[in-house]
Amino acid sequence: MTKKKFSEEVTLEGHIIDSWMLPRAFDTIMDMGGTFDVAEIQVGRAKDQASFARLDVHADSERQLENILLELQSFGATLASRNDVACEPAPADGVLPPEFYSTTHLPTQVRLGGHWVDVQNTEMDLVIVVDPERGEARMVPSASVVKGQLIAVGHEGIRIIPPERPREREIFSFMGSNVSSEHPKRLVIDEIAREMRAIRARGGKVAVVAGPAIVHSGAGPLLAKIIREGYVQVLFGGNAICTHDVESVLFGTSLGVALDTGQPVPHGHRNHMAAINTIRGCGSLRQAVDQGVLKEGIMYECVKNNVELVLAGSVRDDGPMPDVIVDVQQAQRKMRAALEGVEMALMIATMLQSIYTCKMLKASVKVFAVDINPAVATKLADRGTFQALGLVTDAELFIRELSDALAICEKQEAKAKKPAKA
Amino acid sequence: MTKKKFSEEVTLEGHIIDSWMLPRAFDTIMDMGGTFDVAEIQVGRAKDQASFARLDVHADSERQLENILLELQSFGATLASRNDVACEPAPADGVLPPEFYSTTHLPTQVRLGGHWVDVQNTEMDLVIVVDPERGEARMVPSASVVKGQLIAVGHEGIRIIPPERPREREIFSFMGSNVSSEHPKRLVIDEIAREMRAIRARGGKVAVVAGPAIVHSGAGPLLAKIIREGYVQVLFGGNAICTHDVESVLFGTSLGVALDTGQPVPHGHRNHMAAINTIRGCGSLRQAVDQGVLKEGIMYECVKNNVELVLAGSVRDDGPMPDVIVDVQQAQRKMRAALEGVEMALMIATMLQSIYTCKMLKASVKVFAVDINPAVATKLADRGTFQALGLVTDAELFIRELSDALAICEKQEAKAKKPAKA
Amino acid sequence: MTKKKFSEEVTLEGHIIDSWMLPRAFDTIMDMGGTFDVAEIQVGRAKDQASFARLDVHADSERQLENILLELQSFGATLASRNDVACEPAPADGVLPPEFYSTTHLPTQVRLGGHWVDVQNTEMDLVIVVDPERGEARMVPSASVVKGQLIAVGHEGIRIIPPERPREREIFSFMGSNVSSEHPKRLVIDEIAREMRAIRARGGKVAVVAGPAIVHSGAGPLLAKIIREGYVQVLFGGNAICTHDVESVLFGTSLGVALDTGQPVPHGHRNHMAAINTIRGCGSLRQAVDQGVLKEGIMYECVKNNVELVLAGSVRDDGPMPDVIVDVQQAQRKMRAALEGVEMALMIATMLQSIYTCKMLKASVKVFAVDINPAVATKLADRGTFQALGLVTDAELFIRELSDALAICEKQEAKAKKPAKA
Amino acid sequence: MTKKKFSEEVTLEGHIIDSWMLPRAFDTIMDMGGTFDVAEIQVGRAKDQASFARLDVHADSERQLENILLELQSFGATLASRNDVACEPAPADGVLPPEFYSTTHLPTQVRLGGHWVDVQNTEMDLVIVVDPERGEARMVPSASVVKGQLIAVGHEGIRIIPPERPREREIFSFMGSNVSSEHPKRLVIDEIAREMRAIRARGGKVAVVAGPAIVHSGAGPLLAKIIREGYVQVLFGGNAICTHDVESVLFGTSLGVALDTGQPVPHGHRNHMAAINTIRGCGSLRQAVDQGVLKEGIMYECVKNNVELVLAGSVRDDGPMPDVIVDVQQAQRKMRAALEGVEMALMIATMLQSIYTCKMLKASVKVFAVDINPAVATKLADRGTFQALGLVTDAELFIRELSDALAICEKQEAKAKKPAKA
Repeated sequence: MTKKKFSEEVTLEGHIIDSWMLPRAFDTIMDMGGTFDVAEIQVGRAKDQASFARLDVHADSERQLENILLELQSFGATLASRNDVACEPAPADGVLPPEFYSTTHLPTQVRLGGHWVDVQNTEMDLVIVVDPERGEARMVPSASVVKGQLIAVGHEGIRIIPPERPREREIFSFMGSNVSSEHPKRLVIDEIAREMRAIRARGGKVAVVAGPAIVHSGAGPLLAKIIREGYVQVLFGGNAICTHDVESVLFGTSLGVALDTGQPVPHGHRNHMAAINTIRGCGSLRQAVDQGVLKEGIMYECVKNNVELVLAGSVRDDGPMPDVIVDVQQAQRKMRAALEGVEMALMIATMLQSIYTCKMLKASVKVFAVDINPAVATKLADRGTFQALGLVTDAELFIRELSDALAICEKQEAKAKKPAKA
Repeated sequence: MTKKKFSEEVTLEGHIIDSWMLPRAFDTIMDMGGTFDVAEIQVGRAKDQASFARLDVHADSERQLENILLELQSFGATLASRNDVACEPAPADGVLPPEFYSTTHLPTQVRLGGHWVDVQNTEMDLVIVVDPERGEARMVPSASVVKGQLIAVGHEGIRIIPPERPREREIFSFMGSNVSSEHPKRLVIDEIAREMRAIRARGGKVAVVAGPAIVHSGAGPLLAKIIREGYVQVLFGGNAICTHDVESVLFGTSLGVALDTGQPVPHGHRNHMAAINTIRGCGSLRQAVDQGVLKEGIMYECVKNNVELVLAGSVRDDGPMPDVIVDVQQAQRKMRAALEGVEMALMIATMLQSIYTCKMLKASVKVFAVDINPAVATKLADRGTFQALGLVTDAELFIRELSDALAICEKQEAKAKKPAKA
Repeated sequence: MTKKKFSEEVTLEGHIIDSWMLPRAFDTIMDMGGTFDVAEIQVGRAKDQASFARLDVHADSERQLENILLELQSFGATLASRNDVACEPAPADGVLPPEFYSTTHLPTQVRLGGHWVDVQNTEMDLVIVVDPERGEARMVPSASVVKGQLIAVGHEGIRIIPPERPREREIFSFMGSNVSSEHPKRLVIDEIAREMRAIRARGGKVAVVAGPAIVHSGAGPLLAKIIREGYVQVLFGGNAICTHDVESVLFGTSLGVALDTGQPVPHGHRNHMAAINTIRGCGSLRQAVDQGVLKEGIMYECVKNNVELVLAGSVRDDGPMPDVIVDVQQAQRKMRAALEGVEMALMIATMLQSIYTCKMLKASVKVFAVDINPAVATKLADRGTFQALGLVTDAELFIRELSDALAICEKQEAKAKKPAKA
Repeated sequence: MTKKKFSEEVTLEGHIIDSWMLPRAFDTIMDMGGTFDVAEIQVGRAKDQASFARLDVHADSERQLENILLELQSFGATLASRNDVACEPAPADGVLPPEFYSTTHLPTQVRLGGHWVDVQNTEMDLVIVVDPERGEARMVPSASVVKGQLIAVGHEGIRIIPPERPREREIFSFMGSNVSSEHPKRLVIDEIAREMRAIRARGGKVAVVAGPAIVHSGAGPLLAKIIREGYVQVLFGGNAICTHDVESVLFGTSLGVALDTGQPVPHGHRNHMAAINTIRGCGSLRQAVDQGVLKEGIMYECVKNNVELVLAGSVRDDGPMPDVIVDVQQAQRKMRAALEGVEMALMIATMLQSIYTCKMLKASVKVFAVDINPAVATKLADRGTFQALGLVTDAELFIRELSDALAICEKQEAKAKKPAKA
């Protein structure tokens, strides 16, 4: 064995076992050609005790050592570095200094004036704008960066807090190696229902990202009911679910197929365009509701229940509906704002909006991605956290079972509260 | 245009519009390079009136004309031929004369002594054994042919009755061009439930071909209930569903995962082998039931309710369970016998057994193929008939909804029967 | 049988067999509860002879008869109607009169002043703006309609020309009932290559709609080569393929994975954002090429070879790249303009842009949709024409084989041209 | 925190980092409700230095402690236990004592007379038959167990050797979290080609498990060529690939579709049955080759090149071909024997045979599973080892590229060997 000439001490602290920080550190060092000695290791005996490890990392070159240290840092190791975060000004609006630091979806801190400061907002692939005078830092999308703003660069003086694996929450342990289509999904659906009720009870927020197949498969009225009952605070979708929903309410069809018989109706293919035209005639969804044109359905319930509705445009849109935001950057900004405070996101049969929603969510938000295509469910659930679960199943039947599970939960809770008779 | 020298008159009779016989005839002739004149066409005005067409088919060569005529025959055209069916003796056991006629799943007749005679049994890819003395013919699998038996050869003196498109049965009209995952499945499930109740009421037979995911996803008890209620007369499966079912009953797990929590249990991976070992120790499923070892579940209900259970072995089997038929030819024979009189087949999350079951079923049997993989659902439903429907959906949720739909049907019927109060 | 009281004569003319117009007419009438007599039928004997049929359609009510006639019209039947197209003014910008006629992707004519006039442009789900004074009509998207423009309403005075089934073109006959993953794809790829060479030779236009998996799977340089060789005139994509391509050129990675080893590189995850930042710093792709920053790749070849490049924004975009059009309505307009004159469209591993491209293409454009997900390939190829084919296969290997097939074609043609030696 | 009353010391030795044994131990203990102290940890600095850890495991009950220890053992931890393996006699042929130990696919040892003895054969889900007198043990399938044989029971005196993660072999590192359809597959194919050439060069064995889509998609001749060139020593398949291959050779079709045009041929649907009948007439594939009836193709090359061919029957088979083994237990035995010494297994577009082949292979065999369905590729590659890779891709194009890659490898090696010119 060739002796490694370059060394540095690294400390790992916190939930280093539960966050898999320690084994990933071992692996990373060896994968990248380095070696290490475990100088010290203390494993907390209980859940609330922190663990601690001190490693001496060895490498063959300064560059290799640097690469290893940066990689360790990316999942939570704290370098021995005592420096503040380095910053450089943005050379132009929306343009970053070349060495900009790209963020993760994990809680992040920067060192300013020798102190670790929480970075405001948490979102993947943003940059950190630093205000040294105020001792503040926040994540912003690169497109919003203004010339001259100080952008965090390099890796020094930046650290992230890795997520802890929630051992007591059984629902996510399906995740293990695979997103499977064969696990008992009703167990998961029951758990989602309990969680939705708990969030509603404490005034929290649930976001639903909804694809058009929900309406097309006849499950629209059930989702509308779930919204009406107050389980949904944020709804993201596109032109398609909006148009399908309005078409189903106005004409009883979805893409020209009658929802009560499954049969195409004569000339039904134009109902889609006629639905858009009707709402365009009213001016907006809200105006259609106010004018008594739109009297039920998913969109109606969103309007009536003050759900934060963001309909993002896409190049495949017909029409579009007047409420659809055709500027995708603007749509992203509205989505970002609406996600503030969301505790759970339910993504049903829609890949496009879901991908960006996933990116915008910080690691601690619970994510359930429902899709009949295993590749989509896997992609959406693949967040590197212990809080995401992909369900390979049918959107229609999922919503039916969820609606049923919510009703059963309600009954059980009502029963539990009822005082025993004297 | 070169003049076609060879001509023959063909008549098309019966439901030539509803069976798509006429347009396919037009298309086939032109695709194969021929031309035609419509000598006569009479379209029945009502459903019960037969239609009739007479075409003069022209081709450039005798060979081309022959090919066209044979192709027309394959979907129901009657050739002007006045000859009896031609036969040749099988040269050895299980070996056919080279020009053997290969059957379809449609009702078939052969001309014997100048009369059209129904061929007994109807199954795809079999051969016709003819007994001219008795004036009888029947379809048999080639492996069962005995040296010297007379086998129908060529195409003369053979005709098939094409299926009529059932306009009034709305459920199958989804089929159109595509098997879709986005149609309202609950409508179909309600229709399946009504049909199953009707078949049970008239003492008919429903076959279920069941894959192991049913148990693994937690829907085993619901399928067991459906069997217990008398909706299933034939059940086909393999070693996997049998073992999963027994494991779930004996240990509460499926492949080591607890069905009530979704969590793996300690050392659960051996429960699968232990389930097999337990039944092997008893001798058979029936003995396990009789000895009180197996007290519930799908296999238990099959034993208790005299369901015709055929468990076909496959090369991927562990164990296997003692009831599994390890000789696949023997399994086929038992399946063929069990399918006699079946009116509906429900194939759930299993490709292997379903493919052969589909092949064995005559065209008039209603087939529902449920699979989360669109390719499988499409393949199984692709029977060239108007009686097959592929449902791209989740096996667990499908069975939950079917169980629910059956219960609702029952209530509705009970209500309908109740006499109005005086 | 109840006698039908309401009747009307309908004529079917042209390729009524080859376009399946006749059998669809029979079927439609019966499906919708009507009956018919075939008053006359003349089938052209040769490909270039038109056919003709005259049907008397009967229905139980005026409304039913109307519905049947409209449905017949939608695939090419000519009603006996002698009226001009009816029009109403648009009540507001982007708002249509309620009875607006929604277009198909088939060639369409309107009757103006007693004469049939070709409607300019051909695209699905648009509306027809009529200028009676000039005797002109054209299809426009509803969003572009200006208050007061005359919009075609109802169905009278409008007819469409159904597509003829191209019997001699073997490549599309796979299409039959299913898009299969098991057919010999190399045969199709060879045919695509021959067609691309023919189009290039005659100065025609091929559009490629390209998904990011092309770059991610390492096939980027092969697509770049195909563009460089002049086989592509229009390229549609999104931010992702642009960013992946630039990342691969600048850093040799795609989403941080090195394309020459398949291994993640240290800190590679930020290469994606750095690629965007680099081009933003240059100002645009063209400027990046001009400044020598971008020296090869798909985007480089598009710039260098004057390919009409439309990058449509979507809500899932990072950055985005400066060339991405963030207003999706504007992107649609640019796509529509770029598709003018396109003869073939190749859609590879991208659903979003492909869906709208498919909608914008008139029926006569040849469409090949390549996707590893059978549902996507089916959806894209499901155009109701005889010119679309879905290939369920791998984007990377498809492009490798296409590149290979183009090279072999070239050699064969070169050889064919070489004069025999004396 | 409640104090845990029951403790035991466990040692982990060997590649405890590289095999992920250590982190899995930490996780398992905590998941199962226990706690631990790290008494000692020594991490080898180089690849060839063993590591060592000593943990004190604490639990609340004897039962819990036992469960934790057994689970730790299942992936390689050595218990402090000093006992020999416990055994009980089989109560009947093919029936095991209830507490039988079920094997893994990892190298396993049992303690006999105080010494660790290697267990012969290595295969998942078998049992260990112990011969204490000879000091030997071997794994056997439960169906082969003879009454009275001593079967290992419980967990004491048994240990397994976990696999080491092969850091230098880049090809398998795709595996990480997902089997992806978007990685550069040609890199993997090149690596497979190099490995196949290396194995052929050293006289090793490669097994191919081949599905019928290979022939149906036109890639049969390429697989035949790969066999002819000596790259394949074992071929597993079923009746379908055999029949498709023979049909393609005798008639140029696959399921009636001509492989050179992609078009159905007249009456082609009976070619499938005729192919079977022809070989049945000859007696066997070998006789068909000897009689000059079968002159090329996959089956021909297997016969000519003495490839160990096992065709396992299944319930979906037509015919079957005379070489197909209709008793699946017998087929398993032949497969097991044929796999002796196999170093690489290539599974292409076939789930049925692949599942059992995977189960039969010990962990050290390299497995590549090619399927266009991501669920299948994932399932087959999910072996819990570092030696399996799922490729979500097209069987036809995969074989084309593999054939091409083998040819390029050959050229490169030839060039490398050529002496430089003087």
